[in-house]
Amino acid sequence: MQIAKVRGTVVSTQKEPSLRGTKLLLLQFVDEEGHLMPEYEVAADNVGAGVDEWVLVSCGSAARQIPGNEHRPLDAAVVAIIDTVSVENRVIYSKRDQYR
Amino acid sequence: MQIAKVRGTVVSTQKEPSLRGTKLLLLQFVDEEGHLMPEYEVAADNVGAGVDEWVLVSCGSAARQIPGNEHRPLDAAVVAIIDTVSVENRVIYSKRDQYR
Amino acid sequence: MQIAKVRGTVVSTQKEPSLRGTKLLLLQFVDEEGHLMPEYEVAADNVGAGVDEWVLVSCGSAARQIPGNEHRPLDAAVVAIIDTVSVENRVIYSKRDQYR
Amino acid sequence: MQIAKVRGTVVSTQKEPSLRGTKLLLLQFVDEEGHLMPEYEVAADNVGAGVDEWVLVSCGSAARQIPGNEHRPLDAAVVAIIDTVSVENRVIYSKRDQYR
Amino acid sequence: MQIAKVRGTVVSTQKEPSLRGTKLLLLQFVDEEGHLMPEYEVAADNVGAGVDEWVLVSCGSAARQIPGNEHRPLDAAVVAIIDTVSVENRVIYSKRDQYR
Repeated sequence: MQIAKVRGTVVSTQKEPSLRGTKLLLLQFVDEEGHLMPEYEVAADNVGAGVDEWVLVSCGSAARQIPGNEHRPLDAAVVAIIDTVSVENRVIYSKRDQYR
Repeated sequence: MQIAKVRGTVVSTQKEPSLRGTKLLLLQFVDEEGHLMPEYEVAADNVGAGVDEWVLVSCGSAARQIPGNEHRPLDAAVVAIIDTVSVENRVIYSKRDQYR
Repeated sequence: MQIAKVRGTVVSTQKEPSLRGTKLLLLQFVDEEGHLMPEYEVAADNVGAGVDEWVLVSCGSAARQIPGNEHRPLDAAVVAIIDTVSVENRVIYSKRDQYR
Repeated sequence: MQIAKVRGTVVSTQKEPSLRGTKLLLLQFVDEEGHLMPEYEVAADNVGAGVDEWVLVSCGSAARQIPGNEHRPLDAAVVAIIDTVSVENRVIYSKRDQYR
Repeated sequence: MQIAKVRGTVVSTQKEPSLRGTKLLLLQFVDEEGHLMPEYEVAADNVGAGVDEWVLVSCGSAARQIPGNEHRPLDAAVVAIIDTVSVENRVIYSKRDQYR
């Protein structure tokens, strides 16, 4: 999985019928030091992530292992909202601090 | 999924028989600020996207989750025509404005 | 799918038994303006592509959606020989012109 | 598989229910000479890897070939803790030396 | 598939039980002119490849299409030892010449 920051949303009316009701978030990848990278991904969200939160995104067929997504043409999904990222026992990201 | 702009079409007569009747679009990827990137993808289109429209493209086995594509040797498909892309509540792309 | 030019062939005697009888082509990717890129792929060919022809190559599990390839350890296959590539109604490649 | 060094952990409360009980490690890729690269991956760990150990990480659907992971939306998993890496009969990494 | 040169081996004791008995080779990718590239892959080997030989490596779910690998968490496998690579009727690699 990659670490990404929720940046926004993508809305579409004319789409594969199976995608109706799927919330699509625009995610921007974050490097191992917490900086935003140019790479982004549009991913389905079932966990209720909001703008600026850090999430884990799973790509490929993993996106279809989420109940309800099994037969949707999705190649990326948010699978978790991150509480903390620790590197060698140092916390480099904490959701709580983010919102203090 | 990635955001891409429809640039053109690819036509082929001599091909895998299962690809007969598949419309193939040439898509060019768009970065998170709306600029065209060098990366492109040739993708099957079932949603009726036209040149210059922004679309969402799903890659890998996701392309075969579209009815009719299940057994086609496709690794990319257009899954939605984008209405709007919003980043932090700012609309960075709107199909309506595009065609005003 | 990616657009690639057939550059040559790869021959192997000692291989997975299921690959016997599979023709393997060396393909070099082409960018959206028709220039050769450094990236290449060795792909199975069932459509009869020849050197210098432009083809579409499908990567990943798509390569095993071709009759006969279902259980072969292939991650790339030629799925079509390209007749024309058009960008915004301008033909940037035509097989017919290529061989005039 | 890629060679990676365990750098830390990622913790999440709000996530896909099927991910409960999955330990998530932050891995940083290592190049063929043993240097850390900027690329990282967050991967499920079932083999009990610890910080600073070198591991093998499998990406894509391979991550779901591990008992218990079959239906989890995972695209990366630690599959082995590395004892030695040898290049042309020269040992470039040995777990034993690492901890001497 | 990609063309790679066998550079060495990776040994692991503590691993997914299903990987027992799998020989893991360290492969370094080769570009279309035969030069070693920085990218590498650790791949399962069932065809008996040795150091310095050129091989074809299949990535992703293709690695599990090899008898015995079906349920192993592998994302890369050696599928062939290369005899010759020809580009436009010129042989750029020949195993026989390599060992003369």
